[in-house]
Amino acid sequence: MDMKNPQTFFNVGPAMIFEQVPAYTAQFFQENMGSVSHRSPEFRELHRQIIANLKKLLQIPETYGIFFSGSASELWERILLNGVAHKSAHIVNGSFSSKFHDYAQSLNLQTQKIAFEEGEGFEATQISIDNDAEMICITQNETSTGVWIPENTISEIAQKYPEKLISVDIVSSVPIANLDFNYIDNAFFSVQKAFGMPAGLGVWIVSPRMLAKSIELKAQKGIGAHHTLPMHWKNFENNETHSTPNVYGIYLLNKIVEMILNKGIEAIRTQIESRAQSFYESLNSMKHFHAFVAQPKFQSPTIIVIQADSAERIEAVKKYLKSQDISVSSGYGKNKALHIRIGNFPAVPDEAYEKLLQILKQMD
Amino acid sequence: MDMKNPQTFFNVGPAMIFEQVPAYTAQFFQENMGSVSHRSPEFRELHRQIIANLKKLLQIPETYGIFFSGSASELWERILLNGVAHKSAHIVNGSFSSKFHDYAQSLNLQTQKIAFEEGEGFEATQISIDNDAEMICITQNETSTGVWIPENTISEIAQKYPEKLISVDIVSSVPIANLDFNYIDNAFFSVQKAFGMPAGLGVWIVSPRMLAKSIELKAQKGIGAHHTLPMHWKNFENNETHSTPNVYGIYLLNKIVEMILNKGIEAIRTQIESRAQSFYESLNSMKHFHAFVAQPKFQSPTIIVIQADSAERIEAVKKYLKSQDISVSSGYGKNKALHIRIGNFPAVPDEAYEKLLQILKQMD
Repeated sequence: MDMKNPQTFFNVGPAMIFEQVPAYTAQFFQENMGSVSHRSPEFRELHRQIIANLKKLLQIPETYGIFFSGSASELWERILLNGVAHKSAHIVNGSFSSKFHDYAQSLNLQTQKIAFEEGEGFEATQISIDNDAEMICITQNETSTGVWIPENTISEIAQKYPEKLISVDIVSSVPIANLDFNYIDNAFFSVQKAFGMPAGLGVWIVSPRMLAKSIELKAQKGIGAHHTLPMHWKNFENNETHSTPNVYGIYLLNKIVEMILNKGIEAIRTQIESRAQSFYESLNSMKHFHAFVAQPKFQSPTIIVIQADSAERIEAVKKYLKSQDISVSSGYGKNKALHIRIGNFPAVPDEAYEKLLQILKQMD
Repeated sequence: MDMKNPQTFFNVGPAMIFEQVPAYTAQFFQENMGSVSHRSPEFRELHRQIIANLKKLLQIPETYGIFFSGSASELWERILLNGVAHKSAHIVNGSFSSKFHDYAQSLNLQTQKIAFEEGEGFEATQISIDNDAEMICITQNETSTGVWIPENTISEIAQKYPEKLISVDIVSSVPIANLDFNYIDNAFFSVQKAFGMPAGLGVWIVSPRMLAKSIELKAQKGIGAHHTLPMHWKNFENNETHSTPNVYGIYLLNKIVEMILNKGIEAIRTQIESRAQSFYESLNSMKHFHAFVAQPKFQSPTIIVIQADSAERIEAVKKYLKSQDISVSSGYGKNKALHIRIGNFPAVPDEAYEKLLQILKQMD
């Protein structure tokens, strides 16, 4: 490891971190927050702040719980263990929604898999859920392909199936997605995407209805041992966490959420959406590059996936970008050689996107 | 939160962090390691280094795997899920060994509980394990009470039951404990104790025999969905992790392990043991304070638990220490009011212990 690492990161996550992160970190050490107990008044005050700030930023109902994990993928398992007795339904249109489905199978649950082609979105009218499925699992923004499911589609599916729990992966879309959490029972994300922080913290947003289900399931068949929802909730009400959390990650997330609140979330959403729009428009006018997601309404503002007509062209772009100290993400899985994935996140400055577009135009 | 937080931390964890941590952190940001992908050559090189350094520091056999989690308590569940089909045996002599047992019950396993009084240790000859128990779970250092099980007792229990998997909680004893990992199938710790780092990273050390058991169990009944051992191991062999890890925590742990290797682990073990010895000796000569663990061979060098003859005296000490910007841990659970717990960790300077002893003597 040396100073030759890239300087501009369009990685989809771990992604570019906010330039303020080193200063916030210095403050964390100055305040000795790395050494305070997670049962101390200092930690409880931090916990009170982060919960209040997240609820304000994302308009999360006051009755909801918010919990921390080591990663978002841990939460696939927690949500299924705590919320599903027999059967979960999964809308699958990419690698991450597919992994959510895999987790359910590994837990020996019955599953309904509603599959769409990679790169394709869906409407609520296209979704038909089995009567005996207890939970509908939706990946709102597929980090593997750049498919974005409009926020109102989530609410429409929830309204169509008011008895079923709705679980939404918002790993790479929050806080850009403007979701109505009244229709969501579980939502989860990690901090190394649009929140522009180092990895190591997952966040789980939970409705009281989901808590009730987990209490019922605990009595029926068990809900695992670690980070069970009733245990989480009990500590949460005391502004604590069940196990020792990533206090540094929580501190940093609180600072970043405060920064976003000060700037105004609407301003940031507008910035990201406008950058995405001009990026997709430019791709439309290129010969050799195009957006992998064809339908504009499903094109993600935060994860832009570029497809080229040959693996050689993708390779050449990546090689040139590397020479310019610019890092991008490769395509995911079987699309590794044909795609470039771009994180359009608030921590990356506007100029960087302009430079990237210029390079693509030159190499088109 | 402000600058009025304590300056000296004898907390048992989160504990005092090494004074070098802010500088290592600045280096992490300078190298842009917060933004590199966990599938990048940069991360794989970091992974290669941390595994090699941990194996060197702790004398872990080359064939063993090492994996990362969000916390050590997560690993109680992973070890039981991946290693036990029907029944686990738990030696319980405090709150943390008891929680390990609780996790087994929450996972609907049969359990054998071999209970000792809080504050008491045990010899291998006192341990008799049921024939059908597949795993023996031992807490080598009880953070709740300060009981230390000598390293050779672990090896003796393992030799007595060569067919059973041996799982050892070394959360607050590593790297001071000098364990023979040839007799251990699972060991786990977190970094916010003797490694003097902010919390948010657990480490799981695993034998090939445990991997074989997990592969067998996966086919038989399932081993959960997240961070399963076969999945972990596959990524490990490629110097990667299954999910996005706490890259910052891994980076910092690597720096700290390198620092300890440079200083020499034997020098650090001698320092901690000698500080513990003089601390326990001083307690012996006091009237109102004494060590909660009576038998010297079971007195932990890393977690020193002080009992007073009244809750008022403990309260007075804690109040005075707070006025001196010194933080200690309260007693655990039912001992909250009667104990003070002291972390004797390498990040705390010798002078701080001398000052603490002087205060205790004055208030005795």
